[in-house]
Amino acid sequence: MTLPKVLIVGAGGIGTINALALDLNGKADATLVVRSDYNLVKEKGYEINSSMYGNFHNWRPNHFVPSIDVAAKEHGPFDFIMVTTKNIPDGPSSCESIIESAVTPGFTTIVLMQNGIDIEVPMKKAFPNNVVLSGVIYIGSSNENGVVTAKGTDTIRIGSFNDNPKEFAAMEKFAEIYQIEGKNTVVVDHECRKARWEKLVYNVSFNPLTAIVNMDVNRCQIHGANETLIRPAMRELIAIAKSDGYDIPEKTMEFFIHIGDGFFYCPSMCIDTRKKQLMEIEVILGNPLKVAEKNGVDAPILNTFYNLLKLKQMQLKEDKGLVKIDKEDYVGNNSDEYPSIFIEKNNLK
Amino acid sequence: MTLPKVLIVGAGGIGTINALALDLNGKADATLVVRSDYNLVKEKGYEINSSMYGNFHNWRPNHFVPSIDVAAKEHGPFDFIMVTTKNIPDGPSSCESIIESAVTPGFTTIVLMQNGIDIEVPMKKAFPNNVVLSGVIYIGSSNENGVVTAKGTDTIRIGSFNDNPKEFAAMEKFAEIYQIEGKNTVVVDHECRKARWEKLVYNVSFNPLTAIVNMDVNRCQIHGANETLIRPAMRELIAIAKSDGYDIPEKTMEFFIHIGDGFFYCPSMCIDTRKKQLMEIEVILGNPLKVAEKNGVDAPILNTFYNLLKLKQMQLKEDKGLVKIDKEDYVGNNSDEYPSIFIEKNNLK
Repeated sequence: MTLPKVLIVGAGGIGTINALALDLNGKADATLVVRSDYNLVKEKGYEINSSMYGNFHNWRPNHFVPSIDVAAKEHGPFDFIMVTTKNIPDGPSSCESIIESAVTPGFTTIVLMQNGIDIEVPMKKAFPNNVVLSGVIYIGSSNENGVVTAKGTDTIRIGSFNDNPKEFAAMEKFAEIYQIEGKNTVVVDHECRKARWEKLVYNVSFNPLTAIVNMDVNRCQIHGANETLIRPAMRELIAIAKSDGYDIPEKTMEFFIHIGDGFFYCPSMCIDTRKKQLMEIEVILGNPLKVAEKNGVDAPILNTFYNLLKLKQMQLKEDKGLVKIDKEDYVGNNSDEYPSIFIEKNNLK
Repeated sequence: MTLPKVLIVGAGGIGTINALALDLNGKADATLVVRSDYNLVKEKGYEINSSMYGNFHNWRPNHFVPSIDVAAKEHGPFDFIMVTTKNIPDGPSSCESIIESAVTPGFTTIVLMQNGIDIEVPMKKAFPNNVVLSGVIYIGSSNENGVVTAKGTDTIRIGSFNDNPKEFAAMEKFAEIYQIEGKNTVVVDHECRKARWEKLVYNVSFNPLTAIVNMDVNRCQIHGANETLIRPAMRELIAIAKSDGYDIPEKTMEFFIHIGDGFFYCPSMCIDTRKKQLMEIEVILGNPLKVAEKNGVDAPILNTFYNLLKLKQMQLKEDKGLVKIDKEDYVGNNSDEYPSIFIEKNNLK
């Protein structure tokens, strides 16, 4: 029997652990796309420190390749593509364009292992004849120059966006190849939108806040942000989810508030700004705010977070050379005239 | 005839130009307090490049001293103290405590050459028997290591907080010693609160925004912030001013929107964060928001700006050693339990 072929796109903290789990389980023929670290992995492999799968030195996935195109040519066609890259539709490459060359129309199941709401919309538009699944992950994992540290348990809520039998079959198959008794958990969730809203309670507040002020979650909390910004932002998100038909209890909010007590950690968006990497602002904030607007829900804090982060994103793009500002295009008033104009306009005594 | 004695506290872009104007006019015996640059000024003086007073090499004020205490001992008692320092009531030294040793009760007139609303309240409380005046300044001036660059015109709206004859007399006297025909302008404003609200339209929006995103005004505008954040924030301030009895026309907002077209400049609060200096968040945002709360005016963007900047201010304080976070005090949950707790709490299928 030929094993199902799985491509994992994105070799960060999540993708590397996914590849490890699939290889350990032996029920799939997995390939990991490793772009920036390819030579490093080729030379010495990964150093894995994980609480659920144990520790590995010089570990290399069964297959790893430097690009999607190589993967498609050498290891396809794929039964599953797990998308674990960042999801930045306002960046230079959409997830659809990244995976395109490895998707077999009508055959490959695409599993979006990413945060945010409505992330399936552009993917389904690009691949209308493919099954697209939701993967909501609960793990604390990072990959720093080939050193992968994974804490907690590796839990995936594999979910259906459309609640149809074709998706259910694909979900069952995914659970079968991924789940390892006693080591990880795959929860089959026939309707995943609630799980996505729930996880956003965390992501919509801690990620933007820490990215904007460049401070860890716990310091923000010590300095009063639970009351001034975090709970108010979470409540806005809960109101948006409610307008979309999903009731999220206050206790979920309180659970997230205390999830990192004592850890002094920075969520991914804060780390992105420190590393000068683009942030996932559209899927985390932009899409929920579109739902808010459609349903007439007021969300002033999330709107302010979003608009501030859009400016920071433009700065990151300019730093990366993706955007260029030519000052000559913007020569206008002469601020030397400021005081006299101002005083004249206001009819001083 | 003895000249009136004037002490200028704060030798930044404003204070140095104030000292220069008073010395050039020759109608006051001025003393400038120069703290950090004292040795530099003693050795080679200031380099002044000003559009209103001309250029000066190695310029030294008639009197300059390293501290308020020395000023009080050697050059007092003072008819006027011009306070041109930053105003940071949440910092280590309030303006009242800074000038205290140079204030002669019942005699010295204190001129607050600073932005913000209700800045006179703590000053009047500290010196109940002294006249406290408002100085609203319209000048673009900076002092970078003894090089002072001043553009535009030096215009001061000298104003009365209390609208009483004793203040009016002090204002007239101040105008007399400061005004130099053809070089600067002193506007005597019998009720200054409107001027303070007007200038806040600018300060409440551009200063926080650029400090939060660490980007110049013009880039923010190019990337859409006029619509998303700047005008909305200004409108909140205008609504607060209105609740306080002051009507500020939309054209004032539009004037400020275009005041720096083509200049790609950073306002003071943004520069403060870059230099890791504490910011004037209480007088610029905190006090207007107190008025908003008292009068029931909704100001969610300004509130969000304020709460974000309070976090940034705490980080600046921690960097300066004014605040210490002991992580041991905050050990709480164990985030390793995150996935299982979360899933249990939410009763997954």
